[in-house]
Amino acid sequence: MSRFDFVENEKLKKQLEFIIECDKAKNVLRKTVLTDCSRRENDAEHSWHLAVCAMVLSEYAPEGADIGRTVQMVTVHDLVEIYAGDTFAYDEQGNATKQQREAEAADRLFGILGEQGEMFRSLWNEFEECETPAALYARALDSLQPLLHNYITEGYTWRGNHITTEMVLKRNAACREAMPEVWKVVERIVEDSQKKGLLE
Amino acid sequence: MSRFDFVENEKLKKQLEFIIECDKAKNVLRKTVLTDCSRRENDAEHSWHLAVCAMVLSEYAPEGADIGRTVQMVTVHDLVEIYAGDTFAYDEQGNATKQQREAEAADRLFGILGEQGEMFRSLWNEFEECETPAALYARALDSLQPLLHNYITEGYTWRGNHITTEMVLKRNAACREAMPEVWKVVERIVEDSQKKGLLE
Repeated sequence: MSRFDFVENEKLKKQLEFIIECDKAKNVLRKTVLTDCSRRENDAEHSWHLAVCAMVLSEYAPEGADIGRTVQMVTVHDLVEIYAGDTFAYDEQGNATKQQREAEAADRLFGILGEQGEMFRSLWNEFEECETPAALYARALDSLQPLLHNYITEGYTWRGNHITTEMVLKRNAACREAMPEVWKVVERIVEDSQKKGLLE
Repeated sequence: MSRFDFVENEKLKKQLEFIIECDKAKNVLRKTVLTDCSRRENDAEHSWHLAVCAMVLSEYAPEGADIGRTVQMVTVHDLVEIYAGDTFAYDEQGNATKQQREAEAADRLFGILGEQGEMFRSLWNEFEECETPAALYARALDSLQPLLHNYITEGYTWRGNHITTEMVLKRNAACREAMPEVWKVVERIVEDSQKKGLLE
């Protein structure tokens, strides 16, 4: 039983159901807060912000990175969290079961689209495997954006969760490889944050 | 005085400022609510949802539409509202001054990026002028998504604002031209909504 049972085109009916299901990403809350500290950020906003970052920082992307593909990849990279939930980057226990939970979520969510779901699944797999230049770029942005938020908010999420300098540098490792020019900024931010006592 | 004064690369400094400024789109509220009616949707989430729609519904896009460009276009199409505010689609008074307000906002926001801002400005101009297949597709999605939300939420925004069938059909005119197959669904949704008394 679908809310779009009146749609005769079966494929289009599934596509509309998928679009409505994706609305749930707006209620998946991350640990990161907005730069004005007013509230926690959700997956939809975060993904959108990464798409903006991918466009703005394209000149620092790894050689051969297809920027258009990265934009599409970051748009869908957190969709599985609709069912699997957000796993905090520094939650060891959560990250141990993350892969399995998210793979099941991907089957369920992208499965709504039937054969077309494979395109989304392939973008998500590429992001997870992090081997292509586009995926490496996407992964670097996925840790850079919360780093910037944390820096602007005086370590809002870091301070509440006993995050150390080492943890942040490790989490941002993709940036070192993907965008050496931006990595210099990451190092300065981490250094300054440590000096200010925002990181343990 | 920038929060990123320690960044030696002047261009990168401006790019980081722009990325942080874009965070404000998460606080620009639209009239549309989430499909669970829990709260109003913001510009960042809406833009992200359109990017998902652009990918899902690509097979119905007008001939010659560059889907990658549409995804990037919808990602930035509402950024000017950070300064110009959201103008409700059915607010005649607001729409009379919209163009001027948004053009000034575009100068200010994209100006942060210097020369690079022209790429964003050009995407935004293309969306506003709505002449290319990619822009026509983006515009059609920009009214389809709130239509779907309104249908799922039993006309939440329509009922509170005395919206008529005629107004909704006019607002969705781009869809008729851009995506005839999807337009059939729009007609059925509007018809059903009228029958249910969701539209005046």
